[in-house]
Amino acid sequence: MNPFLQKVYQPGLNVEPATAELLATVVRIAKARDVVEIGTANGWSAIWLAEAARDTGGHVTTVDVQEWPGVAENLSGFEVDRVVADGGAYLAGRNDGEIDLLFLDAERAEYASWWPHPARVLRPGGVLAMDNPGEAADFLALAGDCFIGGTAAVGKGLYLGWLKP
Amino acid sequence: MNPFLQKVYQPGLNVEPATAELLATVVRIAKARDVVEIGTANGWSAIWLAEAARDTGGHVTTVDVQEWPGVAENLSGFEVDRVVADGGAYLAGRNDGEIDLLFLDAERAEYASWWPHPARVLRPGGVLAMDNPGEAADFLALAGDCFIGGTAAVGKGLYLGWLKP
Repeated sequence: MNPFLQKVYQPGLNVEPATAELLATVVRIAKARDVVEIGTANGWSAIWLAEAARDTGGHVTTVDVQEWPGVAENLSGFEVDRVVADGGAYLAGRNDGEIDLLFLDAERAEYASWWPHPARVLRPGGVLAMDNPGEAADFLALAGDCFIGGTAAVGKGLYLGWLKP
Repeated sequence: MNPFLQKVYQPGLNVEPATAELLATVVRIAKARDVVEIGTANGWSAIWLAEAARDTGGHVTTVDVQEWPGVAENLSGFEVDRVVADGGAYLAGRNDGEIDLLFLDAERAEYASWWPHPARVLRPGGVLAMDNPGEAADFLALAGDCFIGGTAAVGKGLYLGWLKP
């Protein structure tokens, strides 16, 4: 982890470093260009996503219901669009199949109510990533028909699903 | 895990199920077509790779220095080419940049002696995957300049590296 990431990191608020590292590797492997994060918080994971998207020629959009203290400063050097909106409403407003990788890291109890948008907005073969999926069992039950994947035991668990074409 | 995979699985010999699951998801996410495994053993992980490669329109080549008991039967229903050869010699004989995903699961002490072939044979943006990378520190030191990635804490650890273009 570079010194800037170290400085921004807030344990408890942010996903664990092992989670961010795997997620960033997956962005690169997927050649993801349109990368969307729901749950910006202080921007720490968006920095990881942005560094990976730089390698794929992509960009990151990160969405949160509120603007967290310090987030503008933390993300000022990165190609990241910040959107202040409800995550479900944001996804509902996106077109079919235009997102390459969607990372959910917001209010897990809400995810199921966002269905089918988290799957609808992804391109066939796109990636759904989700931190702490143990708290979103109802959402995973819905997603199970559309995605092939599983949860890697990094941090609080990182679900990675590949959208069946 | 389906009943067939359950039946073939040999704990201790094969990578752990969580490792195989993540690896198979990565094959799909990477859209890997030319998938190579070094270290066939009884074919268990090759079945996971083959099921994923079916989704990408790809195929799997798996290499081992010996033919393990039962491997032909285990792999008979899958699109897998079996090669009995030394892993390093096999990689040395492949062309530059033609493999999409290389999974190393053989004698870890030998990997460093195979350099630079594990990187040379991968396409730019291709994936190097390696089980139990803690036992291949010398190899990882060589790979560090060419790959961006890290080790996910599944099973004995699964290193996933993205070959810098």
